Amino acid sequence: MKAIVHIGLKPGVLDPQGRAIARSLVDLGFDEVSGARQGKVIEIDISGKNADQARESVTKMCEKLLANTVIESYRIDIEG
Amino acid sequence: MKAIVHIGLKPGVLDPQGRAIARSLVDLGFDEVSGARQGKVIEIDISGKNADQARESVTKMCEKLLANTVIESYRIDIEG
Repeated sequence: MKAIVHIGLKPGVLDPQGRAIARSLVDLGFDEVSGARQGKVIEIDISGKNADQARESVTKMCEKLLANTVIESYRIDIEG
Repeated sequence: MKAIVHIGLKPGVLDPQGRAIARSLVDLGFDEVSGARQGKVIEIDISGKNADQARESVTKMCEKLLANTVIESYRIDIEG
């Protein structure tokens, strides 16, 4: 079973990496870009759990290690 | 209009960050974790283009700046 965790900065949190990307794209001539934000995705292979157990387990992983819940929000998709 | 670009390492490319995440999770007691891979997501706000034009433009952005196509693959979703 695979869990896909999407982690992004909460709205309102300054995203210097996203700003740098947006500015670089405009500098390269992509004038249509008005902003960018960067997040991350972590795919986790999980064995021996059903979907509900996997989701519960991955939620704990996010709270403990994967996300900084002060400034980041996360979303979990369970596949397969 | 918003373009969401998913960038990940190609299969077979070593992912030390993903390995570190998997190992840390196991160390924390999540024995069900058998592997992890980390990728990134870039959300780009685009103005003045229709969906097809936006996709074409974002493909160029990926090739020129966002992805290292030697080791990374990307997927583009257009929203709104």
